[in-house]
Amino acid sequence: MTQFAQRMKTMEKSASVIRGLFGTMGDPDIISFGGGAPAKEALPIETIREIAQDVLRRETRGVEALQYGSVLGLPDLREVVVTQLLAPKGVQAHMDNILITNGGLEGMNLLCQLFIDPGDVILVESPTFVQAVEVFEMFQAKCVGVAMDDNGMIPEDLEEKIKKYSPKMVYVIPTFQNPTGRTLSLERRKKVAELGSWYDVIILEDDPYRDIRYSGSDLLPIKAFDTTGHTILANSFSKIFSPGSRLGYVLASDEITAKLFDAKTATNSHTSMLPQVLCAEFFKRGYYPAHHKMICDLYRERRDTMISCIDAFFPEGTKRTYPDGGLFTWAQIPGGINTTELLAESLANPDVRVAYVAGEGFFIEGNGMGNNCMRISFGGVPPEKIRIGAERLGRLICSKVEGGLSCPAE
Amino acid sequence: MTQFAQRMKTMEKSASVIRGLFGTMGDPDIISFGGGAPAKEALPIETIREIAQDVLRRETRGVEALQYGSVLGLPDLREVVVTQLLAPKGVQAHMDNILITNGGLEGMNLLCQLFIDPGDVILVESPTFVQAVEVFEMFQAKCVGVAMDDNGMIPEDLEEKIKKYSPKMVYVIPTFQNPTGRTLSLERRKKVAELGSWYDVIILEDDPYRDIRYSGSDLLPIKAFDTTGHTILANSFSKIFSPGSRLGYVLASDEITAKLFDAKTATNSHTSMLPQVLCAEFFKRGYYPAHHKMICDLYRERRDTMISCIDAFFPEGTKRTYPDGGLFTWAQIPGGINTTELLAESLANPDVRVAYVAGEGFFIEGNGMGNNCMRISFGGVPPEKIRIGAERLGRLICSKVEGGLSCPAE
Repeated sequence: MTQFAQRMKTMEKSASVIRGLFGTMGDPDIISFGGGAPAKEALPIETIREIAQDVLRRETRGVEALQYGSVLGLPDLREVVVTQLLAPKGVQAHMDNILITNGGLEGMNLLCQLFIDPGDVILVESPTFVQAVEVFEMFQAKCVGVAMDDNGMIPEDLEEKIKKYSPKMVYVIPTFQNPTGRTLSLERRKKVAELGSWYDVIILEDDPYRDIRYSGSDLLPIKAFDTTGHTILANSFSKIFSPGSRLGYVLASDEITAKLFDAKTATNSHTSMLPQVLCAEFFKRGYYPAHHKMICDLYRERRDTMISCIDAFFPEGTKRTYPDGGLFTWAQIPGGINTTELLAESLANPDVRVAYVAGEGFFIEGNGMGNNCMRISFGGVPPEKIRIGAERLGRLICSKVEGGLSCPAE
Repeated sequence: MTQFAQRMKTMEKSASVIRGLFGTMGDPDIISFGGGAPAKEALPIETIREIAQDVLRRETRGVEALQYGSVLGLPDLREVVVTQLLAPKGVQAHMDNILITNGGLEGMNLLCQLFIDPGDVILVESPTFVQAVEVFEMFQAKCVGVAMDDNGMIPEDLEEKIKKYSPKMVYVIPTFQNPTGRTLSLERRKKVAELGSWYDVIILEDDPYRDIRYSGSDLLPIKAFDTTGHTILANSFSKIFSPGSRLGYVLASDEITAKLFDAKTATNSHTSMLPQVLCAEFFKRGYYPAHHKMICDLYRERRDTMISCIDAFFPEGTKRTYPDGGLFTWAQIPGGINTTELLAESLANPDVRVAYVAGEGFFIEGNGMGNNCMRISFGGVPPEKIRIGAERLGRLICSKVEGGLSCPAE
């Protein structure tokens, strides 16, 4: 049969990790801390219905919602991005520098179209978002990991790797990072922007969790420190509006936006119009502030429950992050337990049946790094189920820890 | 500034042609036979509103419409494709071989991800759809034209070029082709499928106009003659439902669909859910047959008006196609008139102000081929405006023909 292109081979490893992730989803018997999907309770269904009622008329916005639209996206929605999402966070932008994408991930794809030739290096956080790595590998980029600590990517290691690998791009999720829940400190944000300008490297700032913060204070995005156009901000409406709508945006310089126009045209012409119209109206009609408060309250309770359950049920020596927002925490388990094997056991054991994502898959190093870690999602699971699932999982882990002495008393 | 990838250079020519096309759109003073957009009267706005009312409830399909969905697309919609769009046209398929794309063009993009390495050859009809060429050139393919006549791509020339260039792919729009309105004959469809199997070349059959036929009888798609999986059928809901919804689909073999799953994941995860739910319900609730009749009646009148106006107002020696469906006719003008220059004059002259797309841009040969041709769209223009526009344009052309003697009497 006809040969596939080279890129289909380079992406095979990450693609198979992702296919693995999809496997356990949707089984109702499993308590899943695996997926990164927002809570279904956080979807503004009735509000969107009400807006749809109003806009889907020939005399209102019906034609606009169903006819071809502009490549950069619905002007209204680009204006919402500028005035309601960027300006309040300290980023001054013009709507002509916004491209609406078909979900946040499409921003990564389009920016690879623009910048990545086969063999180019992209620096990523170690660990990082595996779907983004799949995109980078489809473009035959070589991904190299940059060390992190509790304040995110370490600038000294970043600079060293920039010098060593002359990368085309640095991919960073600065806020409530996927998979760790960690946040890049303000000082480091400034430093990352400077390194991009200094070494002429694109900083791709992917910030989809920023707006769901439950404690602590907002930090300026990396983009706010960019003086040369090297930082490109990508974001998504998935966590604050609806993931199924597949809406995201990219903020870039004039020169880069002109190229994004061409790449978007040659990818799928433009993003679906009806979701853009509904989302723009959702913000313009003022529904966002109350909705935002509702979802933050919802997730805050889930985070607090998850953190206290990990502390209560996981063995002594467990390290976990405390995320001020987002959907994940990241736990490192003591006792040399392999979390990939543990996951198989957890799913197979009728007394456990709890899913998470094993840590190993998030490390591009692939040498067993992170094989004692797990990404634990709390966003999509109600508190009572979090309690049951975390207790069952904790008990399974404790049963593996030699002697079991370090485990909380039952 | 950071260097763009190689592909951004190879696509520059076609990208600038397309940017040029966007320029004249949307000016209300111009009668435009330029764009390929469906008529706004053909959008089922009220029906979609009614469906949205019903599905956007928490107790019905509200969560499904707004939450993450599956990579291949909404199962319901894939079933609709199989049972309502493919089976009645003689193509037996399984829904697991259908991928829902973000518009028809995304199918071209994804198939390039799968098959095209830089320098690979893609054979295209001469002339062909310029947006598809832009996609191919973004993937650094070398496009080579295959000669056409009134029955579409000429198989003898196709076979000769397959032997000469060892292409990876043949791109063909078999029905009411863009830009010519021509249809590939049944015998040739069979032959094209056979050539794909015989020479191990992917036949990419792009068939978005097939379902809007106003006269003549349906022909089996090329895919119906494919016995080896070399033909991949791509189609779109843009002409039969709504272009702004950005919905299309690809039908491919198991092996290719598995790779499409990976490429789609790494492009934008999946197609927007709400448009998929609305479109699936539109078909499942039985709205399509009456809607289909309505739009065919609408376009038939416009085609008939356009053809009779060209015959009445364009000079003797004009050749035009008679499309049995679709949105375009293609005219070749006598007297050595350059249609690119004529277009500039038509737009600038306050007594004319009629747009079309100059023929040259559709030929990848780029040696002045087609510079006496024009693509004339009738789909988006009401009959009374077609009459006024065609008469004005005809008069302008006649004024250019030496002596003017061949022109219809006024």
